[in-house]
Amino acid sequence: MNVKAARCEAWAEVAHKALPLDALVSLLRAFGEPSAILNASRRDLAAVVPTAAVSRLMEPLPPELLTAIRAWLAEPGNELVAWDDHDYPRALLELGHAPPVLYFVGRRELLNRPALAIVGSRNASPQGLDNARAFARALADAGLTIISGLALGVDAAAHEGALEGSGSTLAVVGTGLDRVYPARNRELAHRLAHHGGLLSEFSPGTPARASNFPRRNRLISGMARGVLVVEAALSSGSLITARHAGEQGREVFAIPGSIHSPLARGCHKLIREGAKLVETAQDVLVELGLASRTAAVVPTNRPEESGPYAALLIALAADAADLDQLAARTGLSAQELCADLMALELDGKVAALPGGRWQQRP
Amino acid sequence: MNVKAARCEAWAEVAHKALPLDALVSLLRAFGEPSAILNASRRDLAAVVPTAAVSRLMEPLPPELLTAIRAWLAEPGNELVAWDDHDYPRALLELGHAPPVLYFVGRRELLNRPALAIVGSRNASPQGLDNARAFARALADAGLTIISGLALGVDAAAHEGALEGSGSTLAVVGTGLDRVYPARNRELAHRLAHHGGLLSEFSPGTPARASNFPRRNRLISGMARGVLVVEAALSSGSLITARHAGEQGREVFAIPGSIHSPLARGCHKLIREGAKLVETAQDVLVELGLASRTAAVVPTNRPEESGPYAALLIALAADAADLDQLAARTGLSAQELCADLMALELDGKVAALPGGRWQQRP
Repeated sequence: MNVKAARCEAWAEVAHKALPLDALVSLLRAFGEPSAILNASRRDLAAVVPTAAVSRLMEPLPPELLTAIRAWLAEPGNELVAWDDHDYPRALLELGHAPPVLYFVGRRELLNRPALAIVGSRNASPQGLDNARAFARALADAGLTIISGLALGVDAAAHEGALEGSGSTLAVVGTGLDRVYPARNRELAHRLAHHGGLLSEFSPGTPARASNFPRRNRLISGMARGVLVVEAALSSGSLITARHAGEQGREVFAIPGSIHSPLARGCHKLIREGAKLVETAQDVLVELGLASRTAAVVPTNRPEESGPYAALLIALAADAADLDQLAARTGLSAQELCADLMALELDGKVAALPGGRWQQRP
Repeated sequence: MNVKAARCEAWAEVAHKALPLDALVSLLRAFGEPSAILNASRRDLAAVVPTAAVSRLMEPLPPELLTAIRAWLAEPGNELVAWDDHDYPRALLELGHAPPVLYFVGRRELLNRPALAIVGSRNASPQGLDNARAFARALADAGLTIISGLALGVDAAAHEGALEGSGSTLAVVGTGLDRVYPARNRELAHRLAHHGGLLSEFSPGTPARASNFPRRNRLISGMARGVLVVEAALSSGSLITARHAGEQGREVFAIPGSIHSPLARGCHKLIREGAKLVETAQDVLVELGLASRTAAVVPTNRPEESGPYAALLIALAADAADLDQLAARTGLSAQELCADLMALELDGKVAALPGGRWQQRP
């Protein structure tokens, strides 16, 4: 076994002891390296940490666990990113509850880019999924790492959207990286491994356990500068992630929706409690200080209209209108309007609505 | 002419001089009565107010205006509510820009109930109109006077909703009360006169003038404890009414909507600027201190769907959809969907939208 592999194994073994983080910090200060901690005598350990921690350190890990970790690390592409690794997410170190090791597959450079978590309902509406995808794509293209949890619904849509864009997306999972959950997202996990990344604080072989998901959720919000909640019922776990985010000093963003949609209630609750209401990816960038409001190219706003149809596009900028309203707003005749609208429709700039009304396309 | 009629005429005449309000207050302190002001000599007036105000007072009103006012006041049911009238809205007096007289038709007791203004787009969506109606009805039944401007769209829907409920609604109009604008709301105005009320600070005969509507809007927000904006484009006049409301120390409420609806943008802007996001009439009552959060009966929540159409109703819960989308969401055939949708429409549970789309009714 080479030096690097041995080092990784020692980190994995120490991490698996699940010591209080301050005890682990004291041990590393005293012994320097995880392997030195593992090789230290009971007496030397007892000089640094309380008896309970010493007993835990002296107890050997189950051999099958060590075998599983070793086998996983031996696979090409599989990596361990420990506290002392240059690529370990600095956002987590600042928080004070950073897991000592992260099992990782993918593009290491994504771990320390400014990140946004996108979370929401597993049973999102088609519109919610579209929103997750569109925000993720635009924000990945703007240089953010999109973090989510590889769940069905909003999580998967956010990863997909980011993969359609620059690909900068990380899935933080609540199982061992050899156990993709849910199985329906296996293909997505493969694409993430190649074009984005997957990470877990749980050792290879760890199955889906309900008790591990809250820890995973804290990691999602902790790695990000902010959490965007796309659609969430009042009982949604996404609200818990948003609460962690607030406690961790992260921004919370929420997309509003119809008051008749149960999936908008969670977002509305967050907005009432102080989350930022966002309508566009640009809104998120502005709030994170990564773009300025004045220089904003809000995808749903448009640069000043000019050209032959300027008056007509301006007349349609605020809301949909029928021919009479457009005639009043532009001074054009019905015949002129029909010709211009047809040209604009062919151009993909306006769309006809039922009832003879017209609307600008976003 | 009886004493009351003479008094009303004198008030109307003095009000029509449009003196600065502090000058009018000084005159009333000095002379006691509007008729005494009108009969005072130039010298006596000059001892109280500046020359410009004296000249204005000495200039006779056009006789046709006096005739119009006199004729209007002579009609049964038409009234003038002046500063010294017990029924004059106290909310306006507290603001410092209360018009000296209000021309009024309807139930005087509505003038001093706690009031909520409901405003929004003239081109509201069917869902927006339904929301305006439902909130108005529930809040009128809860004892609030619903104030709006008798415009098309949200205004009319709010008046209608309140009339379906307890009827406590007032229209504040920007024309003389003999000139209902827009004409399409004439029938609604008649019902308001009988079951709610209409008021204007403008003399009978005043036509629709663009310059008068901002003053009317300030009256709408000034009479209310809060303003609820139902749907508004970013360029909507409702945002100006909301700004007045804020300046007047009134609460501002806004109903959120889809980020893809131009008619939700104005509401979202208000929420970002501090307006309260509301989902239910109960939310408004709680914010106004008229109900407690714990006792909330959320009218727009529904019991879990069950019965033969449960899947279809759930598929329509989040947003409107066409047959293809419903087929994808429910697994039902087009023929089954058509039959079920017809049954639900007859039952008043869903509504057909233009373009073959369907929507749940609140």
